[in-house]
Amino acid sequence: MTLDAVLSRIDTDLPEALDRLLELLRIPSISTDPAYKADCARAADWLVEDLKSLGFEAASRPTPGHPMVVAHGGSGDKHLLFYGHYDVQPVDPLTLWDRDPFDPQVQDTAKGKVIRGRGSSDDKGQLMTFLEACRAWKAVHGTLPCKLTIFLEGEEESGSPSLIPFMQANAAELKADIALICDTGLFDDSTPAITTMLRGLLGEEMTIHAASKDLHSGSYGGAAANPIKILAKILGNLSDAQGHITIPHFYDGVAELPDTIRAQWQSLSFDHAKFLGDVGLSIPIGEQDRTPLEMLWSRPTAEINGIWGGYTGDGFKTVLPAQAHAKVSFRLVGDQDADAIRDNFRAWVEAQLPADCRVEWKSHGGGGASVMAIDDPAFEAARLALGAEWGKPAAYIGCGGSIPIAGYFKTYLDMDAMLIGFGRDDDQIHSPNEKYDLECFHKGTRSWARILAKLA
Amino acid sequence: MTLDAVLSRIDTDLPEALDRLLELLRIPSISTDPAYKADCARAADWLVEDLKSLGFEAASRPTPGHPMVVAHGGSGDKHLLFYGHYDVQPVDPLTLWDRDPFDPQVQDTAKGKVIRGRGSSDDKGQLMTFLEACRAWKAVHGTLPCKLTIFLEGEEESGSPSLIPFMQANAAELKADIALICDTGLFDDSTPAITTMLRGLLGEEMTIHAASKDLHSGSYGGAAANPIKILAKILGNLSDAQGHITIPHFYDGVAELPDTIRAQWQSLSFDHAKFLGDVGLSIPIGEQDRTPLEMLWSRPTAEINGIWGGYTGDGFKTVLPAQAHAKVSFRLVGDQDADAIRDNFRAWVEAQLPADCRVEWKSHGGGGASVMAIDDPAFEAARLALGAEWGKPAAYIGCGGSIPIAGYFKTYLDMDAMLIGFGRDDDQIHSPNEKYDLECFHKGTRSWARILAKLA
Repeated sequence: MTLDAVLSRIDTDLPEALDRLLELLRIPSISTDPAYKADCARAADWLVEDLKSLGFEAASRPTPGHPMVVAHGGSGDKHLLFYGHYDVQPVDPLTLWDRDPFDPQVQDTAKGKVIRGRGSSDDKGQLMTFLEACRAWKAVHGTLPCKLTIFLEGEEESGSPSLIPFMQANAAELKADIALICDTGLFDDSTPAITTMLRGLLGEEMTIHAASKDLHSGSYGGAAANPIKILAKILGNLSDAQGHITIPHFYDGVAELPDTIRAQWQSLSFDHAKFLGDVGLSIPIGEQDRTPLEMLWSRPTAEINGIWGGYTGDGFKTVLPAQAHAKVSFRLVGDQDADAIRDNFRAWVEAQLPADCRVEWKSHGGGGASVMAIDDPAFEAARLALGAEWGKPAAYIGCGGSIPIAGYFKTYLDMDAMLIGFGRDDDQIHSPNEKYDLECFHKGTRSWARILAKLA
Repeated sequence: MTLDAVLSRIDTDLPEALDRLLELLRIPSISTDPAYKADCARAADWLVEDLKSLGFEAASRPTPGHPMVVAHGGSGDKHLLFYGHYDVQPVDPLTLWDRDPFDPQVQDTAKGKVIRGRGSSDDKGQLMTFLEACRAWKAVHGTLPCKLTIFLEGEEESGSPSLIPFMQANAAELKADIALICDTGLFDDSTPAITTMLRGLLGEEMTIHAASKDLHSGSYGGAAANPIKILAKILGNLSDAQGHITIPHFYDGVAELPDTIRAQWQSLSFDHAKFLGDVGLSIPIGEQDRTPLEMLWSRPTAEINGIWGGYTGDGFKTVLPAQAHAKVSFRLVGDQDADAIRDNFRAWVEAQLPADCRVEWKSHGGGGASVMAIDDPAFEAARLALGAEWGKPAAYIGCGGSIPIAGYFKTYLDMDAMLIGFGRDDDQIHSPNEKYDLECFHKGTRSWARILAKLA
């Protein structure tokens, strides 16, 4: 049977597949930091060459930001698009890494072999599972399984500023029957999952300006506005004592969970104590009238992701700084409108400012939540394929993260998207010592071969 | 008349006096940053050599931190001690300086010539006014005016950790009739002042620890504790809507101003609008039932001098950090007890922490306020001498800053202290582009010559 031959080919080719991934991981393609612009281009070029070696017509396509990789290959009635991203998160604080984040290594751990390095899971390791499945298929069959478009972005970790214009300008070229996205996780270590609810994301940066220069807290303290204190007071009000977010109209468009989904989530063996216990915590801090799984998958958040101002070096400096800064993000669900929330948040901050201070805003993008239409038969086909590989049924789950691309495919290309990924909760994506389990890389590649066999 | 000869000598020697000050300002003696340890020692050595050239027996005396400069000279029944500090504040943000902070220069400005550079006012320029007065006296008389002890510290800007032990260990050597301290300012551009009330200072650094590592805000946001958000909520509560500080027992020991002092302050032509307007502000932000002069001179404060956590670079990173940090200081007045306030502040923070988070503390020292005994006749003598130099009576004023040394002289050496300085409000001490007016340097030196003539 040809699927068995493809799976067998994946097994024997694993060492070479791993070498290819390590090569890609050595390119520090941090999209948010302009210092790494050339490295992002290099990662795109590397993927173009790899896709060409599989018989794709592939190109690195320029944008005002980092390039898009677009490749076309295969033939047939069925047309699948695969999406992933080759950019990675920054690596600071570097001191918390056990090794150079861009000198990846396969390491033995108590839980098995892991691929350690920035992007190993998010998303280079995940996107390579699909490419490796195609490679094995090509080796066995001499052709790709069906008509395939590969679409790899380089700005996913920095708000995807070029994505929508690129999709709009190339809509006819990118349109397929369905989009496959590999940027999510397993439900637990051994249960595969298809993510059908994704939170949206809105990113805002604020600078509060008070005095025209830094002041001495002895000469001015007590009379002159301190922008750090003002920032703390305003952002300290983001959530009330019950964990509810206090910005006016914030919950507009947030619906209660449908009973069917609620019942399915309750049947999942989600270990709340372990989830927080694994990272040294014990108390779910969100809305106190919600379960942690609801907090993560179906409720919106307001978080401060960065704050800075005044003297932050060794020792002490009795300064009242001229400015204080924060980066604030919101995870959105249901029909919450990112633009409206941006406006309401800004007005809410400005209403709390002393009249002689001002706030300067910088937008880091925004996009609403996505809820997939799981009645498309491709979902059930993929669910069965995943179940065959992992030995237990795949779950339809929610996801606390934001992969706005899923919604964009619907909005701009009128395509459904299917989110299938093989990350584990302890992958430490966006954190020091990110890893991807070798088992996930291997079984992920095998899973895609099975899914392609069902869908093609 | 010999005083005239001394004053005349000061006038003709001004260019050389300026050269000496510029040489001292070129030494980057930032005491709070360990990277500048050797520079602090170099500044101490420079002063020892200068004092020796004036006939003092002078030495750089080691401490566990930066050295103390102690010098003895002159003779007679009257024994005066002079205190200043040779260390300076850090210089960041460096981008806001118009020139290298340690490449000082005399510049022409609309308000006259200024000496621009870190420490030009606080405190190298100020301490050199006393040394230059001694130099001129020696040149004219061949001797110093009386028995003099010079005591120069190198840790004033970093909490003075070695000061009390050094004073205790050398109490007999340092004890004099009265201490003269030159680290304060004029009341306004042309009115000399003797500072008789100084606020105390307590410095605390806090780190809130939440998760055991940085988390992805998509995977954990809404359920896991965010230490920045917790920090903002707690520190946002430091003051209430009326500007009152909310820490329990914070106002214990804060007395109302005596009527005599209140009347004298009301007679001072303090321009509240100009005071804040000069730094781009208009609204006094402290206790709303107090005048700005009270806020600055006789009321306590709670300020955040530094805050940091999460991602603070370019772009955006959706991280929930493991830690968040703040540096908080309190200006103390009257009989407020620094140790009690430290304990109450820490308990107040800890009571607001979620049970699965913890706070780590670092003390940056603390000392109470000082109120001088102005019935000592030396105060009236100095007030008359200052009036003669500046052409208008000197004022007894308060000071928002903290010069704990004044209290230490009382506590550990049973000496009164007289605070006389020549800084102006726009000197930008602790800020970029610090300056000292050449007029202040010149008339300050002349003022000390007149005061020495009265007191000796």
